[in-house]
Amino acid sequence: MHTILESKTGTVIIGDDVPFVIIGEKLNPSGRKKLGAEMAEGNFERVRHDAVLQVECGAHMLDVNAGYPMGDEPAMLVQAIKVVQSVVDVPLCIDSSVFEALSAGLAAYEGKPLVNSVTGEDERLELILPLIKKFNCAVIGMANDDTGISMDPEYRLKIARKIVERAADHGIAKENVVIDPLALPVAADSTAITVTLETIKLIRSELGVNVTCGAGNTSFGLPNRAPLTTAFLTMAMCCGLTCAITDAMNETIRAGVMAGDVMLGKDPYAANWIADFRVKQKQAEK
Amino acid sequence: MHTILESKTGTVIIGDDVPFVIIGEKLNPSGRKKLGAEMAEGNFERVRHDAVLQVECGAHMLDVNAGYPMGDEPAMLVQAIKVVQSVVDVPLCIDSSVFEALSAGLAAYEGKPLVNSVTGEDERLELILPLIKKFNCAVIGMANDDTGISMDPEYRLKIARKIVERAADHGIAKENVVIDPLALPVAADSTAITVTLETIKLIRSELGVNVTCGAGNTSFGLPNRAPLTTAFLTMAMCCGLTCAITDAMNETIRAGVMAGDVMLGKDPYAANWIADFRVKQKQAEK
Repeated sequence: MHTILESKTGTVIIGDDVPFVIIGEKLNPSGRKKLGAEMAEGNFERVRHDAVLQVECGAHMLDVNAGYPMGDEPAMLVQAIKVVQSVVDVPLCIDSSVFEALSAGLAAYEGKPLVNSVTGEDERLELILPLIKKFNCAVIGMANDDTGISMDPEYRLKIARKIVERAADHGIAKENVVIDPLALPVAADSTAITVTLETIKLIRSELGVNVTCGAGNTSFGLPNRAPLTTAFLTMAMCCGLTCAITDAMNETIRAGVMAGDVMLGKDPYAANWIADFRVKQKQAEK
Repeated sequence: MHTILESKTGTVIIGDDVPFVIIGEKLNPSGRKKLGAEMAEGNFERVRHDAVLQVECGAHMLDVNAGYPMGDEPAMLVQAIKVVQSVVDVPLCIDSSVFEALSAGLAAYEGKPLVNSVTGEDERLELILPLIKKFNCAVIGMANDDTGISMDPEYRLKIARKIVERAADHGIAKENVVIDPLALPVAADSTAITVTLETIKLIRSELGVNVTCGAGNTSFGLPNRAPLTTAFLTMAMCCGLTCAITDAMNETIRAGVMAGDVMLGKDPYAANWIADFRVKQKQAEK
């Protein structure tokens, strides 16, 4: 199943027979106070810089979030989207839990974005899905609802199924729904990742839709995080994860994902791997 | 299921509820002509040195192979085992395709080793299994036979089943058989690893035995091999691989395997991960 996203002139395909899609996570004020403060003041220089850098490092898409306390989120999100689309030509993931921000962001966006996200509550589904249909875009459905986050993979699957079905009721095709099975920090619960991996397998085998997640969460609270996040990502790829919001600028993570594609036969003749090695080799020679 | 191996005084458990077991691959003249030549001349200094180094780097067991053209393999293997057991106290994997070498090596070994390996041919099984029973050790069964290497996971499972059943006929318990599903270079065939991963899942779900492989094969022929081998290992761990013969001295591989244990909940509270980080931090401070 292919989920197709578009920028002004570019296209990205998320699917289980194509290379894994890396969605750069950096354009998000959560944990980046300075970025948020600058955006609230109308200064988008760091947004511009980090957008370019992430794409140079290999991000196929970029997540854009403008949530900041006291900030005018709809206006900030619109401005961020415009700035990012003026410097890079990759599809964006428009990230907000505020309806007005999503609505304004979607109106400003040129192309077909991915909306991050809708949860499984009836109220949220009835609010967000009409917007997805109106703008003919794709949406990330999170496998939690008003009961919170279940540690039962079958329950998470049940929520995913509900989101896919409710999207269909609104005329949104299955391929425009990407499920986030939820990836929690393993440091807080040693079963966190096995639950996530099992959920991914269930979603892939029953619903067949694309699956994404915020990969960095998994290593939260632990030292030397990159190999941990990378181990999670390759394992999740093996279970059916087809894209992730993660740190595209970390070489360990990026190489791990590319290596995962090679191992799963999604980089035939390791052509991308070898090309990337040659680029790195030339950079090292300089 | 626990496969228990013993050195003079130490014990290693291979199983799906304990950390992954790394078997150091370096004590093998294949591709190391100098090592082979030295061993044939009775010079075991490099064997001694590399045994200590691999264990210092985190190998839980060591593979010992003495195959060298024109060398007296039984005598060389015995000598290598004695030298290694005199400097490190980890269980060994006695690696030879020559009956006389295995026989002499087993007689010389102190503890309960893992024998590498027997294939699925009747003739090999009838030759090697009595030796395994006699010395009360464990054996690696390779999922190939006189028909060669099948690319059908079900056929590899069939061979694995045959090895486990034939071992039982010889009075060898299931926990003393570790299956190698075969890991071939992905560079030569882009389906090589998906076949291996599928075979691992089948073996784990039907036979429940421990599973090992030579991980380095997977990245053979490609540049920047460590992230590739690491991606294979974490994916295979996710499918049920419980130990591997690999490069214990490569930090990317070692960290990847340890990270895999954290993610799969086999390193509770990430205690090993955090302890390892602290050791590395202290070394860096020096």
